Parts: sequence; structure tokens; C-alpha cells
Amino acid sequence: MTTILNQHQDYQQAEEAYGFPLIIKQLLNRAKIASKDQTISYADKVTYTYAEFFKRVNRLANVLKNMGLQAGDVVAVMDWDSHRYLEAYFAVPMSGMILQTVNVRLAEDKVLYTINHSKPKALLLNAEFEPMAKNYRHEAPSIEKIIWLDDTQYDEDTEYGEDTIKTQQASMPDYAEGEYEAMLDTVSDEFDFPDFDENTIATTFYTSGTTGDPKGVFFTHRQIVLQTLSSTLASALSAEGQGARYNDVYMPMTPLFHVHAWCWPYGATMIGLKQVYPGRYVSEVLVDLIEQHKVTLSHGVPTILQMLIKEMATRGRKFNGLKLSVGGSKLNEALAEAALESGIEFISGFGMSESCPVLARVAFGDQTSTMTTTEQINYRCLSGSPIMLVSMEIWDENGKALPMDGESTGELVVRAPWLTQSYFKNPDAGDELWRGGWMHTQDIACITADGTLKITDRLKDVIKSGGEWVSSLEVENILSFHPCVAEVAVIGVADEKWGERPLALVVLKPEYVDIKAEDILALGHQAVEKGYLPKYGVPSEIRFLVEMPKTSVGKLDKKKMRIMYEEKLI
Amino acid sequence: MTTILNQHQDYQQAEEAYGFPLIIKQLLNRAKIASKDQTISYADKVTYTYAEFFKRVNRLANVLKNMGLQAGDVVAVMDWDSHRYLEAYFAVPMSGMILQTVNVRLAEDKVLYTINHSKPKALLLNAEFEPMAKNYRHEAPSIEKIIWLDDTQYDEDTEYGEDTIKTQQASMPDYAEGEYEAMLDTVSDEFDFPDFDENTIATTFYTSGTTGDPKGVFFTHRQIVLQTLSSTLASALSAEGQGARYNDVYMPMTPLFHVHAWCWPYGATMIGLKQVYPGRYVSEVLVDLIEQHKVTLSHGVPTILQMLIKEMATRGRKFNGLKLSVGGSKLNEALAEAALESGIEFISGFGMSESCPVLARVAFGDQTSTMTTTEQINYRCLSGSPIMLVSMEIWDENGKALPMDGESTGELVVRAPWLTQSYFKNPDAGDELWRGGWMHTQDIACITADGTLKITDRLKDVIKSGGEWVSSLEVENILSFHPCVAEVAVIGVADEKWGERPLALVVLKPEYVDIKAEDILALGHQAVEKGYLPKYGVPSEIRFLVEMPKTSVGKLDKKKMRIMYEEKLI
Repeated sequence: MTTILNQHQDYQQAEEAYGFPLIIKQLLNRAKIASKDQTISYADKVTYTYAEFFKRVNRLANVLKNMGLQAGDVVAVMDWDSHRYLEAYFAVPMSGMILQTVNVRLAEDKVLYTINHSKPKALLLNAEFEPMAKNYRHEAPSIEKIIWLDDTQYDEDTEYGEDTIKTQQASMPDYAEGEYEAMLDTVSDEFDFPDFDENTIATTFYTSGTTGDPKGVFFTHRQIVLQTLSSTLASALSAEGQGARYNDVYMPMTPLFHVHAWCWPYGATMIGLKQVYPGRYVSEVLVDLIEQHKVTLSHGVPTILQMLIKEMATRGRKFNGLKLSVGGSKLNEALAEAALESGIEFISGFGMSESCPVLARVAFGDQTSTMTTTEQINYRCLSGSPIMLVSMEIWDENGKALPMDGESTGELVVRAPWLTQSYFKNPDAGDELWRGGWMHTQDIACITADGTLKITDRLKDVIKSGGEWVSSLEVENILSFHPCVAEVAVIGVADEKWGERPLALVVLKPEYVDIKAEDILALGHQAVEKGYLPKYGVPSEIRFLVEMPKTSVGKLDKKKMRIMYEEKLI
Repeated sequence: MTTILNQHQDYQQAEEAYGFPLIIKQLLNRAKIASKDQTISYADKVTYTYAEFFKRVNRLANVLKNMGLQAGDVVAVMDWDSHRYLEAYFAVPMSGMILQTVNVRLAEDKVLYTINHSKPKALLLNAEFEPMAKNYRHEAPSIEKIIWLDDTQYDEDTEYGEDTIKTQQASMPDYAEGEYEAMLDTVSDEFDFPDFDENTIATTFYTSGTTGDPKGVFFTHRQIVLQTLSSTLASALSAEGQGARYNDVYMPMTPLFHVHAWCWPYGATMIGLKQVYPGRYVSEVLVDLIEQHKVTLSHGVPTILQMLIKEMATRGRKFNGLKLSVGGSKLNEALAEAALESGIEFISGFGMSESCPVLARVAFGDQTSTMTTTEQINYRCLSGSPIMLVSMEIWDENGKALPMDGESTGELVVRAPWLTQSYFKNPDAGDELWRGGWMHTQDIACITADGTLKITDRLKDVIKSGGEWVSSLEVENILSFHPCVAEVAVIGVADEKWGERPLALVVLKPEYVDIKAEDILALGHQAVEKGYLPKYGVPSEIRFLVEMPKTSVGKLDKKKMRIMYEEKLI
């Protein structure tokens, strides 16, 4: 592995100089020296040291090698967040293989689609998902080897949420190669991970996009290393009490199958932090673990934040300044207020499956010291500014860059060292993604003069009323302040006169049932009066739902809402 | 510029996908959006916004281009720390040229040697150094173009240290192309910096090594970007009150000609911090600027730290928690104590010219909350643990890796993505540097089980008494605690019986003149009794000096001391 110095003779590198490829194994260098005795836990089931973790990564690599797997082979994982998953995060790509993180929350047919599409040769299968794998085996499977992941061995020791965690588990089927722990036990704890080209593919997974089949994205070793460095830095630079620190205790609350859990497992291991993996996300278990392990650093979508606040409220206690990065969808200000009250220091960011994921983050300085609570909440809910190395532009429909004045609104396009370079076996969609040499986020946004990114809509969710754009996110935010509203979504529906009009879908809090639409819409009219919203932004109508249609990762599924509206189901 | 995905067809990149080379211009991406209105100051002379800075970088690139300079040409700078220097840090390498940061503190013949050796085509010359350049022109010069840097234009507005700052300045000589500001004024403020191979050489400078001629090291764009990300992160992860933050005010106190000022100017600009450049380092000016601009983040060698403490003491005030990274040579504990008392939050690190420079840094968590002051000082003075991505080993004389047990002592060898790949036009020394595929630091060290690096000596300064190693740094540290000792150095001198014996050289504080050697050595004997030092570690003798021999960058010059001893000059 050599670096080519592209200048003349005088700058040639020494014969034995080490060129240092940016590959995932290098993320372990610091922890190997500095954190040998630090611990990693799997819920209440397993706790071991980094020294043991390194050995188990070596063992897993030996298991994969002994099964005949080779560099370039895809190894899929279907598991909740466990120490095993973390081991696979390293051992699989460090062996030159490609880690596929299967989204087990998708509908079964979509899960099967992603597996059929990526063609893994091996699968690490949590017993809980055995029914899916069984069905899969009836199709034309690429999978030759299945490693069985079984939590029943820990059941005796389980302290938390036994009823919810214990599931009906199949016993290991004949077609499995063996049980994970048993297989690790039989091989050497030494493995010499080779150097290779940093542009080797390390991971692949599927976007849970609401349109059409899931699309596969893929990332190289170099991309993951650079995203990890830059997004960790973007957090750490935050003001006192807000950023990542050497003495944090980390626990993911974005699943490891979801865009590398925002690369935090790579970052936490790189720094050598104490880590906790919570298994399946059950509110009581998450809060138990946060309290028991004194977790200080995590991340999650707004839905998780809501779960945490609710669970802690039932305990009559508060979080102790838990630092939580929030992304995935827009945080509304009512939830944000509740988070601060519950003792959670949240910060919003912006990213997507195609971008590894982090692109922007609130750069939390000391501004809050002079802010009112409302101002502070508003500030923390923004999408922040680009993190280190990220370029952003706002383009109009003709690909012309618009000024960053907080008013000019268009599609956000980006450049960064960690963007998927296409879609897997879908070059047309890849070419569309990279139209004009910038990656198209399909998000409609503006950027203020001081560099703050404001996402106003998804391109496909845009509402155009009387020729003017309505920001559905802005309208949702305003209506969310009504004390009776649990959840709100605004979609565009066809209108003869205006082309489209915003329609608000609302789920009420259980204790309110008799509220009238006008009462909620009154908030919209007030916003118009105060100049926060154009008149045409107030929805013409509200329809009440019992449950809000959502995607597998908890985002509002507006595509489904539009279909339901057209089919007169709402 | 494309990334090659080295897997099969399915993972091919989209035709227009942007591969994102790690080149210095990308360090500006975030600040271009987020910090347009943030300011950069040159002492009390100039303050402008980042928006203006970006324009001036463009202007400088146009000036260089218009002079006929091309990619690959070396552009040397001889200046104190100024906004101009920062502009050159970006404009020169972003133009594909190589920035040579000339160490103006070296003896004139050494300065001329480095210029003759690297063969710059252009020179940015501060008027103060005109005499050197004049002499240079009598030799066989490579320099075709000289840009004149003249501070007299600011003299009217100078508030600080007028007597010390104002120097006899030559007026612009005929051979100069023009004055910097005048040349910038005449060209466009737009420049389209091209993408190119990230392995292009960006910078070169010369080690001020105490042995033989200075040796040239060189760094690529990729190396500087990666060092900047990783060392900024290593600081930012530090506990509350200790690490880099979005709201810091940055000022260098390691000169910009000295190993890229530890890459902090690149880091500060990447983050988009408020920045202050202090010109020549004059104690009063530095402290004035720190107080006026509320500087919170800096770095320097122990000599600078000493200057700051002394100057602030004369003012009867304290620093307000200034975060100062200290490196370059070992910080002794007496100085460390004074620093904390003076309100400076210092952290030690470890690096060298060959390593861009940062390799290790104290990972400041919350340990200090439970430490006594003595323990805390001891902790902060260590060399820390490897920063992100850095591999370290301790080798015996046969190149065998020793255990990390805090006892096994040998040469520290390293791997990192930012190490010079050889020495400029000195391949033999480069091969020696990289013997066995690891970079040899020539530092003797041990690493504790918890990952702390302890440098005990320079390889060439090692003292071997009766077959046993004596750590000169350890002995110096112990003797530095004597209240009369201003500075102390310990060298090995020939001894018939023991092979070598340690000799202590001491500079006394001015108020003490009658102190006896035995009084100081008594500290050594006490350390032996307490088990801190082996018996053979106590120097046989102390000699008192009026001034300590030092290198151009303020390090103890032990080579010179040994020569002086041999020549009976001390």
C-alpha cells in the first residue's frame, strides 16, 4: 500500500515508507493502546473489555475465512443492536468483505427484496428473524452460510423488561452453520488483517425510500473513516455540556442497521469510549440502561426522543443532561421543549442514507446563554451548518446556484468525501442522483447568510398553491403547538382553483377527542397575522386520524397519505 | 478527479459523481458558508472578515499566476505570523504550488542553506529579513520573484509595544516585484482553484535538528487535511474547559514557520473560528492581544508559556482559562504549576517536524476532579495517548516490539496518515527514517498499560551509566523543583569507570547566586530514597551557567552542551 507522490524525483517516498490507507482497521489504532480496559456491554447480558473485543473481532474474521468466504463477498446481518453487531461492523469490512446491514423493520417482502438484490453469501441471523429467513430460502437464495445468533443463552441473567424482550425463539435450524458464540470459541483469537485499497467497498444497505423498491447505497472504507472523523469532530466542538468528550458513555438509539447508526459506533470505538448496546429498542430497557450505565452520548429520530421522554415521565425523574443528536426527520418545537424539560440536551442535524449520513449539524457555541428558552429551542431545531469538508449549494430547477440569503429556496445539492457514488445495480438512478456533479438531496431548503440550513420540504412532498410554495414542515411545526395535537402531517392535495392546497392530518392526544378543526387552524391564522406564514399556507381542512402512517424507520409516510386521500380512506 | 471503486461492475460510480480529493481548498468549505462574517485580525493592524479573506486568497493566487508561477513551483515565505501568512497557507498549495515556510529564527547561514536546498522560485519577504535575502542574492539563487511584505503602512495605527515592534526597515529594493498589498489590489478577487491529486506536495520546511545540516520534510494535501481533522478532534474531545470549541478565539503562539503552527491555522480556518495573528512574538504584545481579543485557544513551546506567565505576573492579573496545547519539548512540573496558577489550562502533546506534527495528546477526561493538584500537574505534563488513527510501538535495538507495560523502554516508532515520506533530496536519511516500515522518532519512550506515552529521552541524548539507562528528562524534572533553579539540563559525559555519568547544567534564578550544588543534588538523593530514581541517576556534578544553550526553536541544545563540555567551555 503506497502513496504516490505525484511530484518530481526529489519528493519520492522512502522504500519502506508506510502510505497509510484510510481503512476501517485504522479506526482501532488509538483504542488498541488507550482503551484496552474500557468496557463494552450488550444490555444486561454481556460486558467485556476492548481487549476482549479486539480478540473477538479476530475470531469472527477467522470464522468467516474458515467458511470459505473471500474479499468482495457480501455478509448480511439481521440483528438488533448487540456486541455481535459491533464486532461485525469491524471484522467483516476489515476482511475485505462487504457488510450488509439489513433493515429488519421493513415489511418482510421488502427485506427479502433487499437480500435478493444484494446477494449476500453469508448471513448473521438473530433467531427472532428466522421466519423471514425461512421464507427467503424458498426463493433463489444466494446465501450459502448462516450463522445463528441466539440470545436465549443470556435469558437467565436478564433483568430488564423480560416480558417484552423474550420472544418466541426458534431453535437453531439444520441449515445454520453453527451458533455465533460456539463458532467463535473454536477458532484462534489472532488474525492479521491485511492492508488494501481504501476505495474498497465496506458496507451496503438499502434506503427505505417511500417510492418504489428500496435502493442500495454503498460506502468505501475511506468514506466511512472520513465521515467518522468529521461528524465526531462536529459534535465534539460543541459548547460545554453539548459535545462528545473522552469520558462519555455511548449507547446507540438509531439502530445499527440504519445508515451505520450515523457512524457513531465507529466513532465511539475510534475514541475508545465506554459503550452500551441496547438490543431491541424497548422504552423501559433504553431508560434502564441509560440510568444504570450513566449513558451521556446518544442519537435518535424524534420518535425515539418521544419514547424516552414519556418513559422517564412515568418514573417521575429526569435525564441528567443526556447529549442526544437528533435527525432523520424534522424535530417539532413542542417535542423539543419537552426534551429540554426532561433533561435531554438535544442538537439537530441533517443527513440521509446516501450521505453516510451526517452533512450538517447545529454548531452549538455559547449563543444559548443570551437566548430566551423559545429562541434556544428554535435554534436547536434548525438543521445546523455544514460539518467540516461539506460543500452545499441551493439550486433552482435549471441547476443554477441561488444566493444564501435565507429566502432563496431550491433543491439542496452537496459534495462531501462520503457520498454514495451511485445506487447498487441501478446506474440510471445513480446518474440522476449525481446530475451536474453534485449529489441531489431531493430536499427543498434555503441557507441563511450566517450559514444555517433550513429544510422546508422533501422535493416530492412540495405543495404548490396558486403557484407559490408552501413549506409543509413549517405548517406542521405551527400546528404542533396546539395542546391537543399529538402528531400532525401536512400534504398537498389537488385543488381545481389553486392547483394544490395543503391538507392537515392530525392525530389527537388520547385525552382530547372533541376538539374542532377550527381551533387548531386558528394557530395557522395567528401565524399569518404575525407574518410567520403566508395566507395560502393555512390548510383548507383538517382530517383526524387514529394513527399516523409512517415508514419503517418512523418517518411520516406522505406517499401513503396521498394514496389514502386519493382512495378516500382518510 | 474520480475515486476508483475497486469492486465489480455493480458498484461503479455514476458518471458525474464527485470523488472529492482531500485537498486544502476543501478545508474552506464549511467556513465559506458558516463563517462569512467572522473576523481575522493581524495584531492591532488589520481586521477583516472571512468573506474578505476568501477574496484575498483568490487575489494572491492571481498574483502568483500572473508572475508566471506554475503548479509544482516552490514559493517560500519569510514573515512573522500575519494575515498574509495565513493567506499564503491556502493560496499557494491551492494553486498546486509548494509552500516553503522558512524558519527565520535559524542562523543566517542555515536559512540560506534551506533556501539554496529547496530552490524556491518566489519569495514572500518581510522587509525585516531583507539583509538575509540580500546575502542570498550573492549566491546562485533560484528565486526569480520577490514579493515585498511591508508593515510600515500600519505603523501609524500601532498601539502595542511600539519600541519593540518597530524595526529598522529597508525600503522596497529594486529587485522586488512589488509590494504585497499593492499587488493584491491590482488583480481580480475571483479565482477558480482546480481539483488535483490529493497526493500533490503542499508544503515543505526544514527540521532545525541539532545534528548536521537541516533536513527538508514535505507533506501532501491529503496529509495536511487528515492531520488537521484528527488533531483538532483530539483537542475538541477534551473535558469541559479544556478542548477546542465552536466559540473559541484562536491565536497561534507557535510560529507559522514551525511545522505549520501544528496545523492549527488550518484547523481554526476549517472550523471558522475568530482568529488573531500576533506578528513577531513579543511578550507584551501577546498578552495585550490575548486580553483585548479574549483569546481562548492557543499553543506553544514551554519557553512561550514561561514568557506569558512572567508578563501576566507583572500586570498582577491572570489568564482567564486560556486553553494552551504545549509541545516541542518536555514541560517540567515546576513550570506547569506556575501555568495553572496563572490561569492557563495547558495540555501536553507529542509530535515532531517529521509528523506534521501531532501524534499524541493528553486525553483530558474528568480525571482531574478526583486528583490532587500534584497528581493533576503530573498528568497534564505527560505526553498523552495516541490521537485518532495513530499507531505506536516501542522497539528494542533489533526492531522487536516491546510490551506496553510502563517499564519496557525503547525507541518509539509510529504510523499515521500524515508522516513525511522521506527527506527532501536525502533518500538515505529517508530510508533510515522508515527502517522496517515504521517511522523512527529517535525518541526513547515507554507506554503504560493504560496507553500513556512517556518520553524518557532523545535517542542521541541517552545516558548509559554502568550499562543502565538514565532518563535525562526525569532527572531534569526532579531538579527543576528546587526553588533556586531557573533551568536545568542533564547530559551524559564520558566516565572511565561507568562509561557515562549524568552531568547537570543549571541556570539559577537571578535572585539566587550563592546556592551550593549539594543543595540541588539533595533533591536527587531524596528521589532515590522515595524510589522515584535509581541511584546511578543522580548526577555526579552540577555546573552553573548564565544562559542555557538552545536551538532556534527554544529547545535545549544538548549537542552544543556536549561540545562545550568537551572543549572545557563549561
